[in-house]
Amino acid sequence: VKVSDIGEFGLIRLLADEFDIPYPPRKGTATQGLLVALGDDAVVTPRTDRAAIWTTDTMVAGNHFLPERTTWRDAGWKALAVNVSDIAAMGGEPYLALVTLALPEDFSVEDAVELYRGLHDAAKAYGVTLGGGDIVRCPVFSITVALSGLAFNSESGQPVLLTRDAAVPGDCVAITGDLGAAAAGVRLLVQGPDFDAIGQPEPERRLRQAQQHPVPRLAIGQAAVRAGIRCAIDVSDGLVQDLGHIATASGVAIVVESQRVPVNEDLTAVFPDLARDYALGGGEDYELVLVGPETTLRSLTGLDAPLTIIGRVEAGVPAVRVLNPAGAEIPTPSAGWDHFATP
Amino acid sequence: VKVSDIGEFGLIRLLADEFDIPYPPRKGTATQGLLVALGDDAVVTPRTDRAAIWTTDTMVAGNHFLPERTTWRDAGWKALAVNVSDIAAMGGEPYLALVTLALPEDFSVEDAVELYRGLHDAAKAYGVTLGGGDIVRCPVFSITVALSGLAFNSESGQPVLLTRDAAVPGDCVAITGDLGAAAAGVRLLVQGPDFDAIGQPEPERRLRQAQQHPVPRLAIGQAAVRAGIRCAIDVSDGLVQDLGHIATASGVAIVVESQRVPVNEDLTAVFPDLARDYALGGGEDYELVLVGPETTLRSLTGLDAPLTIIGRVEAGVPAVRVLNPAGAEIPTPSAGWDHFATP
Repeated sequence: VKVSDIGEFGLIRLLADEFDIPYPPRKGTATQGLLVALGDDAVVTPRTDRAAIWTTDTMVAGNHFLPERTTWRDAGWKALAVNVSDIAAMGGEPYLALVTLALPEDFSVEDAVELYRGLHDAAKAYGVTLGGGDIVRCPVFSITVALSGLAFNSESGQPVLLTRDAAVPGDCVAITGDLGAAAAGVRLLVQGPDFDAIGQPEPERRLRQAQQHPVPRLAIGQAAVRAGIRCAIDVSDGLVQDLGHIATASGVAIVVESQRVPVNEDLTAVFPDLARDYALGGGEDYELVLVGPETTLRSLTGLDAPLTIIGRVEAGVPAVRVLNPAGAEIPTPSAGWDHFATP
Repeated sequence: VKVSDIGEFGLIRLLADEFDIPYPPRKGTATQGLLVALGDDAVVTPRTDRAAIWTTDTMVAGNHFLPERTTWRDAGWKALAVNVSDIAAMGGEPYLALVTLALPEDFSVEDAVELYRGLHDAAKAYGVTLGGGDIVRCPVFSITVALSGLAFNSESGQPVLLTRDAAVPGDCVAITGDLGAAAAGVRLLVQGPDFDAIGQPEPERRLRQAQQHPVPRLAIGQAAVRAGIRCAIDVSDGLVQDLGHIATASGVAIVVESQRVPVNEDLTAVFPDLARDYALGGGEDYELVLVGPETTLRSLTGLDAPLTIIGRVEAGVPAVRVLNPAGAEIPTPSAGWDHFATP
């Protein structure tokens, strides 16, 4: 069944049915803790004594993902997960998502349901309410998620956040998990053989998975802000480029010791010659960079991923320098992700 | 200059410069009353004791507007204005917008600046803060605005709203301004001669303008909620279809007296035979339907547009009936706007 067969409202009804959301709404059916839910001119959330965090990210077919190499369920998961990662990088708690689907008229209703299953999986995993959105016709598929979250309140009741401008000289720089897998996954997806084929090796499968089903570091971001960390960014464009955003915003120099950067093991096994470059320059790993006093960083224990100190913050002209084990500066990998750069 | 020549970050810098927003951000530069502004992982708004309203709408080139017949400045205006209309239809106050641009790589930077001028015009007109967003590459141009607003608080400090589910039998149905101009504007734009030509007649120009530069009824929505009205919708899909949303959500029948519906004068002059159908079924006028006690509706004076009572709410199966002056039901015009309907 094509979307054009049932129309915009038909699709909304079908999706609402599938996920047990009353639609069209009737008096008194507002759900999910909302004052006004799906089906009015807008969605309304109750009052809160916490500051609101806002972010939005879009995935365009053929640019951010390849529909012929990705399940629609993974695409839906990722569309929400990358936004959750931005909330994680602020130390916040995700709350309400608005989802905009731009669909070709021959887009299949079954694929739209699978896409929503992925969104729903991520919403459940990270406590997000899917609040509504927009469905429009467009020759090229895209999905846009606007996600709001709530800021952590300090004991004195003030909003406290992880921002890019809070690095100070003397701080250490730490990274969650390891890096480079998602960039390797892109390479495999674009250049490799058909990975749905039987016999796909396990490391390759995991690399592809890293790119298609990212896991935002939500609990770690929240633990960090609670522990007193105040500076973070998520690695979406590439480690060096994203550290550059902190250096610029904070007005500091950042020095990274190359050999300390945790490189994904599967990446090292599959692309040994590219591993270091992908770890330093590859995007979309959605690991968190945390910047703060070494003692505070080391006090963060019991996390659901390793936390590795990879460098330090110094006074100086805003810049990122990567040093080899001998202490010499090495050229930084290509500039990271730009949506309009030629691939 | 093409967007691909300067890249995503180059375009963000240029737009930020153009509109005096500090970017890349440096310590202490957060502006516009935000806790965290453009340039971090997310935008953060201060705490408020008001409930938050959320809406999003997308415009796709070739579908929602024709770039060759519309200025980019008007496109930018409309992208924000239609979202403001949704906040107006909740009786709220618009607050923060996130803007996502999906741009072909050869999109011109000058056009992007014009688009932002239009967004900026509407932001200024309606008190909206442009908080950031996303810029992605896509073969088809689209603009998505996610807009948040704040709900009106009653004297007792409770959020009160205009919703679709609050119509009760005995209420009257009123409409702001007049209807049908935007639908006539679409017809002129799609089928007419080149309207940039000298000598374009004034009524046609105004009809086209109605479609390309809609004016949301923000002040009237706010006046209505203050006066005690609790039910409204904005006319985006067509009067009869939008009244149908109220009928369904409220579980009531709505009766409209056809001859009371205010038809746009330019529409009547240019398309006399189509005028009634366009007024009842045309979309995108962004007038407000207000539903409530007749005395409350009549107490709304000093508005910036006429308010006309066009019908009433009755107990019964949810449906919309349109009556002619003799009291006989007339067939309702075609079903209104569906993004996937064949034009």
